[in-house]
Amino acid sequence: MKTSARNQFTGTIAALEIGPVTAQATLRLDGGQTITATMTAAAAARLQLAVGQPAVALVKASAIVLVADFGGYRLSARNQLAGTIDRVERGAVSSLIGIALPGGGTVTASVTNDAVDALGLEVGQPTTAVFKAYAVMLAVPG
Amino acid sequence: MKTSARNQFTGTIAALEIGPVTAQATLRLDGGQTITATMTAAAAARLQLAVGQPAVALVKASAIVLVADFGGYRLSARNQLAGTIDRVERGAVSSLIGIALPGGGTVTASVTNDAVDALGLEVGQPTTAVFKAYAVMLAVPG
Amino acid sequence: MKTSARNQFTGTIAALEIGPVTAQATLRLDGGQTITATMTAAAAARLQLAVGQPAVALVKASAIVLVADFGGYRLSARNQLAGTIDRVERGAVSSLIGIALPGGGTVTASVTNDAVDALGLEVGQPTTAVFKAYAVMLAVPG
Repeated sequence: MKTSARNQFTGTIAALEIGPVTAQATLRLDGGQTITATMTAAAAARLQLAVGQPAVALVKASAIVLVADFGGYRLSARNQLAGTIDRVERGAVSSLIGIALPGGGTVTASVTNDAVDALGLEVGQPTTAVFKAYAVMLAVPG
Repeated sequence: MKTSARNQFTGTIAALEIGPVTAQATLRLDGGQTITATMTAAAAARLQLAVGQPAVALVKASAIVLVADFGGYRLSARNQLAGTIDRVERGAVSSLIGIALPGGGTVTASVTNDAVDALGLEVGQPTTAVFKAYAVMLAVPG
Repeated sequence: MKTSARNQFTGTIAALEIGPVTAQATLRLDGGQTITATMTAAAAARLQLAVGQPAVALVKASAIVLVADFGGYRLSARNQLAGTIDRVERGAVSSLIGIALPGGGTVTASVTNDAVDALGLEVGQPTTAVFKAYAVMLAVPG
């Protein structure tokens, strides 16, 4: 599968919850972390999602918020991956930030240059990549 | 209506599903394709949505994922519009991609230059513009 | 809390609605406006959200649509903050737009240059910053 989404996480569906309109799937990554994806119940039915099935979670770089310091706050966003910045590519008004995960994967986030400057984002700095379950697309084989 | 959302699809509400917190509306476009939008049930009530009503679906360019090759995968995202790339405008770290739809419309997507390079996106190439129902705003007259 | 999300709104949780899979919280800002956030019911439970609790709503600049003229349309998006443009910072393919709110706060939106040109966005112009409840992350102390 070739997509423009810069973040693809491969794993296995570990849990499914189907509501009247909304469904959510939890993907256990090969590295042990989990990703939660929300979709319409109709999409879950169409894909015939089942626990134990392999799946890929797709997330656009623009959907990711970086947290440099939680300052005692907790966030509603279901997906929070802690890592270390290993790339800062600055554009005209926004930048691409790469975050190396302990398990070996990478997360790419697109943030404004305002944010880069305000947070002093630079290579080597620890950060947490946060994204909502609503921003995750799920892909399944077949 | 003048908005910054680069994608506006005009159609008629073909189906409505209202849950306890979430609602979804399916818009049938004048070209025959459908767009699914998710909103809170309160928003659907406030707009007094009804089947048969004209409506416009708004989608930001940044919400769209381009799929160059599904590689046998199926995606949870409800909205998938196949077309042909007719514009690649490269910026410092991201690019705007235009996709001409068979029905005559256009989709504009904002993707990273990483994606443009990795997928070899160029004018004339077939691609599918994919976006989640959660990324769609619905506008209705009056 | 230090995050890359350019929009942070501080307030108090004024209403909570918990469905089988989805939950929504309404935040009353110190300036009197309200922000609606959607999350999974599991996230609401994990954060032990309660009416009267202080909270911060986080919204990425890329999630915001600017409406220059509603033209008689109403939008499903729950969050609509009217203000005046006080900054236009143009990049290669997209721009950052600042919108000063009457209450004294500011909203930052990232929009394509296409939109800036099509809408003639410039400092001093009134506009409405619109974003879906699904795009809002909620942060709570402790």
